[in-house]
Amino acid sequence: MKTVAIVGVGLIGGSFALALRRAGFTGRIVGVSSPRTVEEALRLGVIDEARPLEEAAARSDLVYLSQPISRILETIERLDASLQPGCLVTDAGSTKRAIVERARRHIRRGLFLGGHPMAGKESRGVAAAEAELFARRPYVFTPLEADDMETAPVREFREWVEKTGARTVVLDAAEHDRLVAYVSHLPQMLSTALASTLAAEAERRPIEKVSGPGLLDMTRLALSPWEIWEDIIATNRDYIAEALDAYVEKLKTIRSSLDSPAIRDEFASANAVAAKLRGRRCG
Amino acid sequence: MKTVAIVGVGLIGGSFALALRRAGFTGRIVGVSSPRTVEEALRLGVIDEARPLEEAAARSDLVYLSQPISRILETIERLDASLQPGCLVTDAGSTKRAIVERARRHIRRGLFLGGHPMAGKESRGVAAAEAELFARRPYVFTPLEADDMETAPVREFREWVEKTGARTVVLDAAEHDRLVAYVSHLPQMLSTALASTLAAEAERRPIEKVSGPGLLDMTRLALSPWEIWEDIIATNRDYIAEALDAYVEKLKTIRSSLDSPAIRDEFASANAVAAKLRGRRCG
Repeated sequence: MKTVAIVGVGLIGGSFALALRRAGFTGRIVGVSSPRTVEEALRLGVIDEARPLEEAAARSDLVYLSQPISRILETIERLDASLQPGCLVTDAGSTKRAIVERARRHIRRGLFLGGHPMAGKESRGVAAAEAELFARRPYVFTPLEADDMETAPVREFREWVEKTGARTVVLDAAEHDRLVAYVSHLPQMLSTALASTLAAEAERRPIEKVSGPGLLDMTRLALSPWEIWEDIIATNRDYIAEALDAYVEKLKTIRSSLDSPAIRDEFASANAVAAKLRGRRCG
Repeated sequence: MKTVAIVGVGLIGGSFALALRRAGFTGRIVGVSSPRTVEEALRLGVIDEARPLEEAAARSDLVYLSQPISRILETIERLDASLQPGCLVTDAGSTKRAIVERARRHIRRGLFLGGHPMAGKESRGVAAAEAELFARRPYVFTPLEADDMETAPVREFREWVEKTGARTVVLDAAEHDRLVAYVSHLPQMLSTALASTLAAEAERRPIEKVSGPGLLDMTRLALSPWEIWEDIIATNRDYIAEALDAYVEKLKTIRSSLDSPAIRDEFASANAVAAKLRGRRCG
């Protein structure tokens, strides 16, 4: 791997560039982004040079698509003609079925590997990029075919990702999308629904005067910008709906067991999962 | 205020004792708790001496009830005969109607003021107590009568609470209970329901391998111990049910607008409330 094209030099793309450098990558990093972003990325030393998509793709053996999902889908449609034969194209979108299917139809000259670095933070843009963003975080790969994981370009790319400190996981694209519907998209919907429920209360009552740290935890995701979620919902609507249905059923069970001993079991079961997510045994 | 009895020297009671000292209180602090707890509290210098409830109450001009809610209710029933005439009795329970009504019936010799310091942390017990626990946190008072706030003992107590750094708020007990049902108990139920929903997934799928910081935020409350919530649910079931019903309706609205532009409005409304809770303008 000698030249890497980062398409979309924002928080994720910029962090991947910085993480590659930190991991020892000595090749060239070419950025593809808006004029303002590439100027900032060059000034911050995140990329070595900036070029239009076609030029960047033509000289890279890794093309890293870190745009919003809807832009990744567009880029995949017009990317193939510019690729070096045998190069690896990967992406960092948070849903995988739509992207993987688009790539299956449109990427011929290169090899495509779906990817999802499960990292992020409240700030966005290349100025927020950091080499440590992926460390100790999951990085999911969703290959078109399971065998793709054994090809030389994918093996090399996976090694670099692991050198950034990320914990790599290989999943089928549909399996990935179902799983993130539960562990990521459902929490987002709950937080948004909670804050939106409180909006009616907030008009009449001084809720901010009595809010504690628990409420701040539970409404942090509600700060997420709509632009990101628009694409996620559009490409994972079915599994999000399934997760919401399962959750509403659970809430109704809790609602109806407020005066029964059964609610204690819900607390015990929730306690065990919350502890497991933190790598602890049930307390 | 010369002598204070802390009944229940755990995280809250112990922190109140330490906060009083830090605020300049030079009187005596008498602890009432189990033998093991008072031994630890004495060793840590949180209390000056330990006595049984009746003896502690008989020599105090402030009796601070910081036990679990169900224990506070029991203590109120047997406390009156031991009180000095005109002393102030207050509590730190997280629901207020049941406690205030119990006090209205049983506290005759002293003046009762409901209280709720909206502070806490994951660790419990006197070893976790800290003088800064109440700083910048809401501390709600729910007087039996609004006029009680103007009495000398209540004014003095309120001054001490404000010296701990807490932001005091006066509310009717029912108004308090309705408000905390939305800003505190509803978030707890959502977090428990989320973790419990994930329990079924966790049996079949490696959810901990793909969980990010958002899920950790959303499942932190699910770690809360059942013992605390048993009492809260028992004394605030009606308002918790009301808040859950409002929330389930909101979730259904979001569920049915996953493919409509209306969901954008939910995100905008949620975003504004989440920003307001953080003292920011909508971003």
